[in-house]
Order: sequence, then structure tokens, then C-alpha cells
Amino acid sequence: MSGAQEREPHFVRSFERGLAVIRAFDADHPELTLSEVARACDLTRAAARRFLLTLADLGYVHTNGRTFRLSPRVLELGYAYLSSFSLPQIAQPHLERLVAEVHESSSLCVLDGDDVVYVARVPVSRIMTASITVGTRFPAYATSVGRVMIAHLPEDRIEEIVRRSRPAALTERTIASSELLRAELDVIRDQGYAIVDQELEPGLRSVAAPVRDGAGAVVAAVNIPVHASRNSIESVRDDLLPHLLATVARIEKDLRVAAPRS
Amino acid sequence: MSGAQEREPHFVRSFERGLAVIRAFDADHPELTLSEVARACDLTRAAARRFLLTLADLGYVHTNGRTFRLSPRVLELGYAYLSSFSLPQIAQPHLERLVAEVHESSSLCVLDGDDVVYVARVPVSRIMTASITVGTRFPAYATSVGRVMIAHLPEDRIEEIVRRSRPAALTERTIASSELLRAELDVIRDQGYAIVDQELEPGLRSVAAPVRDGAGAVVAAVNIPVHASRNSIESVRDDLLPHLLATVARIEKDLRVAAPRS
Repeated sequence: MSGAQEREPHFVRSFERGLAVIRAFDADHPELTLSEVARACDLTRAAARRFLLTLADLGYVHTNGRTFRLSPRVLELGYAYLSSFSLPQIAQPHLERLVAEVHESSSLCVLDGDDVVYVARVPVSRIMTASITVGTRFPAYATSVGRVMIAHLPEDRIEEIVRRSRPAALTERTIASSELLRAELDVIRDQGYAIVDQELEPGLRSVAAPVRDGAGAVVAAVNIPVHASRNSIESVRDDLLPHLLATVARIEKDLRVAAPRS
Repeated sequence: MSGAQEREPHFVRSFERGLAVIRAFDADHPELTLSEVARACDLTRAAARRFLLTLADLGYVHTNGRTFRLSPRVLELGYAYLSSFSLPQIAQPHLERLVAEVHESSSLCVLDGDDVVYVARVPVSRIMTASITVGTRFPAYATSVGRVMIAHLPEDRIEEIVRRSRPAALTERTIASSELLRAELDVIRDQGYAIVDQELEPGLRSVAAPVRDGAGAVVAAVNIPVHASRNSIESVRDDLLPHLLATVARIEKDLRVAAPRS
């Protein structure tokens, strides 16, 4: 998906470039000069200027004449997705209750291609790490939410994701073989939940359970990530998992009475 | 800001049109056909098709061949803003504590032009109205958060916003005169909080207090909206306001120790 590749005749290159300019801003780069945007997006200064001034005209960017920063109007774009998708709103109060019960954070994720994406999150700590927010993506195969969603896909889609993911050792504990990953997915499907032990990041354990819609299809997953040093695998399974499963049951109940578009 | 008006030579029309295609999707239109997008964005079918297929190529839209819906990747755009702005993350746990204390919802808003924009929200009810989410905008002059932020602007900016807002009677209680609005802003500045009583929507009362950064500038505001039928103005002032002011003080304390980019 690199921008340099050949594209179909329908492809609107200037639209792609404009979206890249929006994405050039992030936590480490909240404020950028024209030259910085040009460099980040591999654009000429003249092109970067046209996109930035267009964004400023539309109210998506504020500028003091020298530097640029995104305006809150950009939220309209991201929230076009969230408001068109009712599941995060349905899940949010249940995640809040779960977090109040177990004093650990919890998130709702969906599968998008080979990645999991956070669509609702209730943090527990006052010290915000800011490394995970709604919109954050991780390779699905290395996360508890990802595995529990992949495990319930049709066999051909499981094959496809495992093949494309090329499981790599993100930590020394990551399951980095397609065969072992498929075996683990079988276990997860049978037991109805996934525990991932420091495979995405050292020190991070996580348990996840799938969320099914009214028709029984897995549409999302809820996790509880914990510090490995503070929570044994046994305590994750015995103390946290029952609360997680009860939470998922409450979300599924609300999902069934919600509008069909959920 | 209508799309038909004349634009500067730098303006990238195709970028504006592409962004409009993203915004065509919302809670009432989570799934659209090509014709529906063309109609909503005032585009030819051929142009709508080019933008939709470009969005699909970039992973921002999923299609079954007939209808289109946004993918969670769109969140990357909205969250480019949120992750470049640390205040919502700093405020979130304090809003959660406030909501646990008063059993009413609470939000953090910023001023963008003449509007307030919700940048963090902790809802209390399990019955989600979905009418207010992060990204929602209202005319600032008719909201408690808006008034408390406008009241602390320099005099020339207050004039400007009051003039441009042309205060209109959104309900039969809205302050719909520039003179009365300016007088109310003086009161709000002196007392340090704003109460708006059913001026935005019948049945809705709201109290708001300003959030100041380390330099003393008002950068945001926190509100507690309540049902007018359940909460008298006296109870809002006596029971809720002290919790609100304590919350704002905690947010400001964290803001002062946070990185300067907040």
C-alpha cells in the first residue's frame, strides 16, 4: 500500500496526498512547518502548501503563518466512522462497569484486515501512557483480541490471515510459526477466550473474549491487559476471566436489542 | 464555507470533495450506495466512484460491490488530532471520577471558531442517546462551556464571536440579544462558572467551568449537563458545582506538570 506503487486509473492521487498531510500530525509532531510536512509526506513545498492551505480554508488546520496544527474539526472525519457504528457506544458503559470491578483497563477491538483496531477504551490508570487510544492498530495474530476474533473466522480466512501475517517474534515469547499459531487458534476456539502472555510486548499479559452479534457472528472482542509482574496467568484466568465473560454477555444482550445496523 | 463559492488559486478542490465523501457517512447513513454518495456530496456518479474507490484502495472504506461503509482506519484521521493534543487524555480520568461522584455525565470541550467541540466525554447512562459524541459541535454562545470560554477571551474576540453568532432563540429561553449575551458573559467571568438553563434544548440544564493552562489562559471547559425536571438550578449550583470546580482544579494541576504541548 505504499504511495509510490502503480494505481488504477480511478485513483485520485491528490486525495491520497491530502489525507497523508493530515496523518503527518501526531503526538510527537502536533505542530509542523510547511517544510516538515513536505518532508514527512514526500511532497514538494508547493504541493504541501496547497494541501495545508486547503485544510486551513476548510477549518481542519490552524496556522499562525509559520507553523500548522490540526483543529478539532478533524474529529468529524474519525467520528464519521464511530457514529456510523453503534457497537462502541453500546459497549462503553459495560466496559466502564468491568473496569470498576477489576481495577484494570479494558478495550473493545474490531478486526480490520490483518490488524486489530481499538474502537472503545476505558483506561484505569491516572498515569496515561497515551500509547493506546481509540484508533490504535496492532497485528492481530500477536494480540489476545486478534486471536479470539481470527479463531472464529471461516477456515479459508484463517488461512489467509495466518499466511499474510507471517508470524514474527515480536518478543522472545511470540508464537512465530504458522503451524503453532493455527494450533493455538484451535485451542482458543474451543475454550472461548484467548490469553496472550508477553507475545506483543514484554511484561504485558492480556485476556480477551469474543463479542457475537444476534446472528452469532463474532464482530468484536473485549480485552483486559495486565502487568505480567502483578498478575499470574492463573489469576488472569480465575479472577479476571469470569468478569470479562459476564461483561461480554451484557454487551451481547444489548446488541441483540439494538438496531440491526450494530 | 459552501463548496460552490470561489476559492483561492491554491485550493485543491478534489481534496475537499474527497473529505466530503467521508463525511457523507454518519449514524443515519452508515452504509451508502454510489448514487447516494453522489447525491449527498453533489458530485457526478463518475466522480463519486473515483473517490469511493480511492478510499477503498487506501483501506478507509469497505465495499461489497454495491454499498460502501467506512472502515475503522478512518479513525486514524480523527485521532491524528486527538493524539496531537494531550488535554483530553489528561482530563479523561478526572471526568471519570467526577461522573462516579455526581452520577451525571460530563464532557471536556474546546472552542473552535464560534463553536464548541466535544473532545472528551464520560457518559453516565446505559441508554446512550448517541446524539453527543467526541467531535460533536454546538454554537458556543448557547452552551455553558461555550459561554465560559468566550467570557475569558480578550474583549475584541468576544465582540467578534458575539457579532458573528447573531444570537438566535434556539428555545424560548435562549438569550437572543447581543447586549444581554454580553451582560451574561460579564456575570460568568466574575463568578467563574456558567449555568445555561434550557437555552440550547428544552429540558436541558448545564453548568460549566473553565480549564486554564499553566500560563492562566482558558484552553477548555468542563460541563455537567442535567435534566431540568430532575435538577433545580439551586441543586446544580449547590450540589454539582463544587464537584465540578474540584475536578477542574485536578485537571489544571495535571496540565501544569504535563509536557508544554498540552
